[in-house]
Amino acid sequence: MENKEAKNSYVAITGASSGIGYDAAKAFAGRHKNLIIIARRKENLEKLREEILKISPSIDVVIKLADLSDMENVYKLYESLKTYHIDTWINNAGLGNYGTVAEQSIEMTSTMLRVNIEALTILSALYVKDYKDVDGTQLINVSSGAGYIVVGGVVAYSATKFYVSAFTEGLARELQADKSKLQAKVLAPAATETEFGAVATNAEAYDYEKNFSRYHTSEQMAGFLLDLYDSSETVGIVDLADFKFKLMSPKFQYEG
Amino acid sequence: MENKEAKNSYVAITGASSGIGYDAAKAFAGRHKNLIIIARRKENLEKLREEILKISPSIDVVIKLADLSDMENVYKLYESLKTYHIDTWINNAGLGNYGTVAEQSIEMTSTMLRVNIEALTILSALYVKDYKDVDGTQLINVSSGAGYIVVGGVVAYSATKFYVSAFTEGLARELQADKSKLQAKVLAPAATETEFGAVATNAEAYDYEKNFSRYHTSEQMAGFLLDLYDSSETVGIVDLADFKFKLMSPKFQYEG
Repeated sequence: MENKEAKNSYVAITGASSGIGYDAAKAFAGRHKNLIIIARRKENLEKLREEILKISPSIDVVIKLADLSDMENVYKLYESLKTYHIDTWINNAGLGNYGTVAEQSIEMTSTMLRVNIEALTILSALYVKDYKDVDGTQLINVSSGAGYIVVGGVVAYSATKFYVSAFTEGLARELQADKSKLQAKVLAPAATETEFGAVATNAEAYDYEKNFSRYHTSEQMAGFLLDLYDSSETVGIVDLADFKFKLMSPKFQYEG
Repeated sequence: MENKEAKNSYVAITGASSGIGYDAAKAFAGRHKNLIIIARRKENLEKLREEILKISPSIDVVIKLADLSDMENVYKLYESLKTYHIDTWINNAGLGNYGTVAEQSIEMTSTMLRVNIEALTILSALYVKDYKDVDGTQLINVSSGAGYIVVGGVVAYSATKFYVSAFTEGLARELQADKSKLQAKVLAPAATETEFGAVATNAEAYDYEKNFSRYHTSEQMAGFLLDLYDSSETVGIVDLADFKFKLMSPKFQYEG
């Protein structure tokens, strides 16, 4: 049996309409956690709510529609959630943009910077300010293997994920140094079969089998996310050498 | 004697109204390079122009006023320079923001993200698209030692510089792989005595002597910038171990 606090407490997930966010919501439903699912596409979130309620009929599922490339929406979204006790915030929303810097659409790159960096930073900061002294809270930011190794052909995307890794690792260290109760964590998936490939290539579909020798399904990655959630480590990363998921301390050198 | 091309060719420097940008402009004036100096503060740029013309009376100095935290200005600025042949573009403009993520003003952080990341990315991409096949061109992006080591207390700033380092190193590799003529380079200063400390701490003045055991003057850093400019290496960095300036290959792991 959960205690009252857990019953009234929520996990918020951005980018929940597909991919890792979608399956992460289902994984938390398996743990009977109330959910706030956030994305642009209403139908996908309604479908997700149905699936969640099949897994765990008694939990509360809150749908929030928001386009996180517009910062006004980002603040409004967070403001609209002030009445909920959110024990876990997962910044999963992110865009890719395939192609070299020379070839890329600058407009698409700007949108990517706003979602992957600015929205994530604002939501992280708002959540940290409200929850840093609250027991049992965590902030999980979804980075990428490309947030630790620069990947050619997706250099700007890779750099956004370096930002996410460095920001979140640094935040985790600051929170530890301040003896805060909130934990900050980085999830760094490698290739995962989602809509990401199609969106990043601006195509109808994307063949993961053809483009990657190895990839995880989003269900597998959602499982890894739960492993990170259950752990006291800061980083959960798919090791590109053996494609295994590993939990570890911050990877970047740090100066306090 | 310079050839005609060099005579009609310019070095563009953002954030030229003070600090490293100001002294870099003077250092290029010592090389008799025409200059486009970009910043918000007109008086500082006019003072710089006077100093430059004392160093090298025959060169052309173009003043451009622009606040690079607004992307509309960023595009307008670049558009207004289309008639110049710019052989070197230096993205030096950058803001700091001292304090932990929990304490920081989110609004100041957003402004920092726009200047340090979005404006730099847009200007880099525009310059790369126009000049990648032009002989003798280079793009120098100013990162920081904090763009390779996460620094507590300035985590979001540090993360913006991780972005700059990863983006620019990746771009350099892409350009090399494409046999482009443009070279992309990263300058990574350590503590440098500029207005940066005062702005980042939101104070009238900032005592470098008191806050750092070692720092360079902005004249010294401008000299290091010229060393990087003259070199075929990608990264010029102040080594925090011995505080010496070193030229080297990209530091982050890369996957092509």
